[in-house]
Amino acid sequence: MPPPPPATDLQVDFPFDYAAHLSGDRRIGLLPPAALGTPVAVIGTGGSGLTAAYELLRVGCRPILYEAETSPDGPGGRRLGGRMFSVRLDPRDSAVVELGCMRVPDSATLLHHYGDRFGLRWQPFRDDYAAGTTPRTVLDVDGITRTVREITDLYPHDELFHRAHLRWEAALNRVGLPELRSAVAERDLAEVRRLWSGVVDRYERWSFYRFLRDPGGAGLTWEQARVLGTAGVGTAAWDCFFDLGVLETFRLLLATEGGGTRHPREGFGALAEAYWAHRTTGPDGQLTSLAEVNEGAPRPGVTELEVGEDLGTGVVVHDEDGRAERFPVVVFTPQLHVLETSVVVRPSRPGGSPPFGPRLLRAIRRLSYWQSAKTAVVTDPFWEGTSLDGVTLTDRLPRATYTLDYGEPREPGGRRGVLVLSFTWAGDAMKIGPSTLRERLDACIRELAAIHPRLADELSQRADPAFARTISWELQRNFRGLCRFSRPGDYAYQWDLFAHFMKNFTGTPAVMGEPPNPLFLAGDDTSWSPGWLDHALASGLNAAWGVLRYLGGTTTPDNPGPGDRWADPRHRPLRPPGP
Amino acid sequence: MPPPPPATDLQVDFPFDYAAHLSGDRRIGLLPPAALGTPVAVIGTGGSGLTAAYELLRVGCRPILYEAETSPDGPGGRRLGGRMFSVRLDPRDSAVVELGCMRVPDSATLLHHYGDRFGLRWQPFRDDYAAGTTPRTVLDVDGITRTVREITDLYPHDELFHRAHLRWEAALNRVGLPELRSAVAERDLAEVRRLWSGVVDRYERWSFYRFLRDPGGAGLTWEQARVLGTAGVGTAAWDCFFDLGVLETFRLLLATEGGGTRHPREGFGALAEAYWAHRTTGPDGQLTSLAEVNEGAPRPGVTELEVGEDLGTGVVVHDEDGRAERFPVVVFTPQLHVLETSVVVRPSRPGGSPPFGPRLLRAIRRLSYWQSAKTAVVTDPFWEGTSLDGVTLTDRLPRATYTLDYGEPREPGGRRGVLVLSFTWAGDAMKIGPSTLRERLDACIRELAAIHPRLADELSQRADPAFARTISWELQRNFRGLCRFSRPGDYAYQWDLFAHFMKNFTGTPAVMGEPPNPLFLAGDDTSWSPGWLDHALASGLNAAWGVLRYLGGTTTPDNPGPGDRWADPRHRPLRPPGP
Repeated sequence: MPPPPPATDLQVDFPFDYAAHLSGDRRIGLLPPAALGTPVAVIGTGGSGLTAAYELLRVGCRPILYEAETSPDGPGGRRLGGRMFSVRLDPRDSAVVELGCMRVPDSATLLHHYGDRFGLRWQPFRDDYAAGTTPRTVLDVDGITRTVREITDLYPHDELFHRAHLRWEAALNRVGLPELRSAVAERDLAEVRRLWSGVVDRYERWSFYRFLRDPGGAGLTWEQARVLGTAGVGTAAWDCFFDLGVLETFRLLLATEGGGTRHPREGFGALAEAYWAHRTTGPDGQLTSLAEVNEGAPRPGVTELEVGEDLGTGVVVHDEDGRAERFPVVVFTPQLHVLETSVVVRPSRPGGSPPFGPRLLRAIRRLSYWQSAKTAVVTDPFWEGTSLDGVTLTDRLPRATYTLDYGEPREPGGRRGVLVLSFTWAGDAMKIGPSTLRERLDACIRELAAIHPRLADELSQRADPAFARTISWELQRNFRGLCRFSRPGDYAYQWDLFAHFMKNFTGTPAVMGEPPNPLFLAGDDTSWSPGWLDHALASGLNAAWGVLRYLGGTTTPDNPGPGDRWADPRHRPLRPPGP
Repeated sequence: MPPPPPATDLQVDFPFDYAAHLSGDRRIGLLPPAALGTPVAVIGTGGSGLTAAYELLRVGCRPILYEAETSPDGPGGRRLGGRMFSVRLDPRDSAVVELGCMRVPDSATLLHHYGDRFGLRWQPFRDDYAAGTTPRTVLDVDGITRTVREITDLYPHDELFHRAHLRWEAALNRVGLPELRSAVAERDLAEVRRLWSGVVDRYERWSFYRFLRDPGGAGLTWEQARVLGTAGVGTAAWDCFFDLGVLETFRLLLATEGGGTRHPREGFGALAEAYWAHRTTGPDGQLTSLAEVNEGAPRPGVTELEVGEDLGTGVVVHDEDGRAERFPVVVFTPQLHVLETSVVVRPSRPGGSPPFGPRLLRAIRRLSYWQSAKTAVVTDPFWEGTSLDGVTLTDRLPRATYTLDYGEPREPGGRRGVLVLSFTWAGDAMKIGPSTLRERLDACIRELAAIHPRLADELSQRADPAFARTISWELQRNFRGLCRFSRPGDYAYQWDLFAHFMKNFTGTPAVMGEPPNPLFLAGDDTSWSPGWLDHALASGLNAAWGVLRYLGGTTTPDNPGPGDRWADPRHRPLRPPGP
């Protein structure tokens, strides 16, 4: 039997190779001399904002960063990183609590490009059913506990699951996901387009649940779908995602099946710090960094944008300190629901054309955000050699529990272990929205103790709020959800948000009715595969390409950028299926 | 053309006539003399708890109420009413802000039974497209504003909507909803069962969105579904409910189409106060009230229940004051996710059988709660004669705006008007979860001013936080969502929760594996049509029937109770569709 094809390192909706575009220390293009030193406001210091700013710095812009999140430890009291949100409770600890990104697929080549450049030390993430890495996955459903290494180990123990899983796998084969992975691996982009086009046409309006139940999908019984929804498919796609558009499930599986996941030992926050501090050369050969250009601190959060109609008018950025500054061009990366709630966007002159056309406003308003909560304790790895050592998946409140080990503490007295008591999404996260840290700890410990009774006392002792952190992303005012995932029928919104960076560079607006103004959106919300950091980074490169073009710059013929591929039918995202 | 059939006054999943059961001052049954005066703990003073307690009082129990919500104005500092949550900002005002229940269908006969008994003054609710009551409904989509009285007035203005709405109506006719309404009106329960059975079999696993798009449903295009999802169907079913199981949409339409909605001028909170204070006669002919039995105040919130296996062992109820008291039987009515988060339920003796079997635990854990937010301002009705006078529906942040008038203020200086700036659900409510009252007001006013430009200044002046209230139900620790609505595939959970009150009274457990212990669940979560107060009240009567039977009581032959109808195939809820 040939080995299964690897996880896709290109995103099937727009299979541009971002990592190759930057390989060998290449820049994204060239600015005309007159544009060198142009200030560009980049709003938001998450993965997309930092990537856009870093690459714009390298072509000779002067990226000015704005960040609404605060932290006593960050530069100027600002917390860099967005959903790269790592917390080290004690400087002596090696252990890092990842409140946001926790792991990324091995296939995330763009992310690994930067991770390698900045010297992050990747290690395999102890994910569920990852037999090579994780000692065991404990599955607790309806009070029955089973312990396995790989998901197929469940087969002999649970006939219901066995049948469900085989039918699920067969359905994915019918859909053609393995062929898609092969076509991506072989860089046969015409074949990728042909296969994905069929999938989008057929399944765009289907939910994950419909795919599980319908005879045209996996055709599972209610009970089979329920069991599969608890055991999970791919990386953490549970029943709480049943409402998800099944295309999102497919995208998740394409990026992860055939590969593992990993995480940086330093924490994802270190990646953000590296973007900020890393000294790189501008086109003049001088070493510079985002930290230097920003004089050591990002500016505070943005309250209002007055958007002009061209480079000359630019965009006036108002910030929380009351400062207003005009920039020729702006990249806006936060989660977009803040545009309806806390950041005002208006035309720069009264009666001027609105900054967004009706189609884009629609997409912004109807974006589907998802709740997510995490609760973790920093400790020594007391679980070694116990039933807790690995991953526990359950239909109880915690849903998913991970045991992580960050290796030798940095100083004596430091701790190395992180017990992620609970990582939840959607309705599961909503259950504990109003609960305090103490209550979350108590509720999780109570349920985990029922699954691992021998550890009941130990768990109770370790669940000390002083050594724990929790987050509900939907309650964070700058985020309002962990990420977007599309629901059935949302493809058209996704298309418009992704296409926004193309403005009218091909001669006509990529998104009908969209004005060619100097405001570029980027960030996870504008990507094809939200929730994965890699694609947020790619969205920053799209916006950077737009800024480059807007300022009169170009890519080089031997290294076209994402927007240069727009006209290529093997790249340009499929239009939404017709009526 | 015959007049369209009226809205259903019975719930099609279990068409028991609760209002008739109580008509003419009848009691729910008779307790044996030895059981008279039995204390029954009723946890939660929302509609279901108060109804259960009130009717148990009338048969001679001694219902002891527990309530976790607090209010300086409530008895003993407790806020009665649950999601009947009315706020009067100034005692001189007639105006009442309804943070929870805002209106009920005319068809809600059980609720009106109590409303009439307690002397509430009902008035028509100024609902969207209610031509007889509401001066106008303004529909603002994609920045285009249209003003109508009835929904069909949109037809000549918007061909897209016209076609969408006709296809939608035709699909509902094919499904047989008008026949169902006729069959309920004629009390042809065999026909109700036949028709509903077909609907459940066919559509149980369908989402609202699938029904809109699929050729087997309304067969709308993407654009048609979008437009219908903004204009709304029935009472406030928008695109934010696209994930809902379509059976829930059908239930909503059955209860509302063919009728209007109304609200009590005193506010829904007055209904809760009336249950509490109303003096009624016990079986001994003596006047008594819940307030008297409870010595003027409910007990505080419950922290733990130790559940025995029978009447003798009973249930020990622990409350926030540290008191523990044993009751022979307990009715538990709060939203059930608190059982996973903040109320511990355990067997009364270590190693005793668990209080819930695996099927019920499953149903509790997988219940789908929905976010909901409301923001309102108390004012004089400055909107009279303006474009704001009525309902505004929009795809902008506020989604739905209502102007309400409570008539002559109670005292000079009082105010009569309530401007409900925004009433939202699901993802729309999530957008503003972390926003302050001030921010919510500002964001709503900004968008409303764009729809009603002449009122921009007036709106800004009125949006004063001192005269405003806002709520996000998902952030309320005793609720964690406004209500449950089922998602596709949730029918089996709904069945188990509804059937719970039957325990093993028919000889075998109604829910397989469920122990016949003295803990009865009630409340909206256990009803067939969540979100409507009427059905929460009915769930309280189910539990009261269970308690009556548990204590050795009986109904009278001429007036069977809900559980007595369980064996009747015209009543017993349909089993979930098979695999």
